[in-house]
Amino acid sequence: MELLKERILRDGYVKDGDVLKVDSFLNHQIDVPLLCEIGAEFRRRFAEETVTKLLTIEASGIGIAVAAAPHFGNVPVLFAKKSKSRNLDGERYTTQVKSFTKGQVYDVQVAKKYLTPQDRVLILDDFLANGMALLGLADLVRQAGAALVGCGIVIEKGFQPGGALVRGKGIRVESLAVIDSVSQGRIQFAED
Amino acid sequence: MELLKERILRDGYVKDGDVLKVDSFLNHQIDVPLLCEIGAEFRRRFAEETVTKLLTIEASGIGIAVAAAPHFGNVPVLFAKKSKSRNLDGERYTTQVKSFTKGQVYDVQVAKKYLTPQDRVLILDDFLANGMALLGLADLVRQAGAALVGCGIVIEKGFQPGGALVRGKGIRVESLAVIDSVSQGRIQFAED
Repeated sequence: MELLKERILRDGYVKDGDVLKVDSFLNHQIDVPLLCEIGAEFRRRFAEETVTKLLTIEASGIGIAVAAAPHFGNVPVLFAKKSKSRNLDGERYTTQVKSFTKGQVYDVQVAKKYLTPQDRVLILDDFLANGMALLGLADLVRQAGAALVGCGIVIEKGFQPGGALVRGKGIRVESLAVIDSVSQGRIQFAED
Repeated sequence: MELLKERILRDGYVKDGDVLKVDSFLNHQIDVPLLCEIGAEFRRRFAEETVTKLLTIEASGIGIAVAAAPHFGNVPVLFAKKSKSRNLDGERYTTQVKSFTKGQVYDVQVAKKYLTPQDRVLILDDFLANGMALLGLADLVRQAGAALVGCGIVIEKGFQPGGALVRGKGIRVESLAVIDSVSQGRIQFAED
């Protein structure tokens, strides 16, 4: 998605040598018109699919899913919650996700009543790096007996293993910008 | 806001005797068209105000602010982040917020570069109960030297002290639904 790549080059920056920061428009400050364009692009990528629910994970995914919903016929958005305490009330689907950046394992949960076998779910998120969050969300969809249409990702870090890992499980992943390398402050995109 | 009150009565429910749950449309599953109506109502309430930034706090506030932005000329949304570890790199405004529900104190932060003395800030959030989160966000605005236009709240718990506390500091608060009591499973709104 050219508009997104231009924006990453213009307003993204590299911290500590190899950490891409896009907090001026995506995951701290949010440019809502850009998010609406991103939502429209997700719809184009999954144009032939029936989608009944957009699933994401707090926090940065929420804005992306809310901006995308009007392009998917205003289907409900459901955001999974992160929790460090196990919730065993039987009312939630729970899966464990390992965070590499924070070095800890946390539970990711959705209320069972909002994810059903009738649902056709599109997962949306801001970043794909190690793929742990995506696989966790896919596991929640599986537990619910719902159909997983695929995953729409804003920025995939192509130099990390998540993309291959998730696609290797037969899950369709559409990433709007794939970054090949971030080194010495330079951002390099993968060839389309 | 009648549409919101009707929705609370129809789809909200009361848990453990006195806890109002609106997770079918507001803070777990999200009804995006409703959020757009809520955003339009915030604009009407603050119609005479110039707003340059919408400030909220992760996670549930993000969807509300993203849906409201188009009604405010697509000004940027900025969401404050919750952190349990102090960040002392000097690049962020930080304030401490006490959570009554979780019984702990956490830091709430925004990057300094996204909140400036030129900003006129409208704070948006889903709930107002004890008012600690709102006061924390207002403190971030004060630290930045920005102007605080006011606070737009989706649901105010009128039987808790936050509303009086925040208004008592001279901050304008507009709540779209004010709940007077939740007892024995019944939801009672304040008179308009």
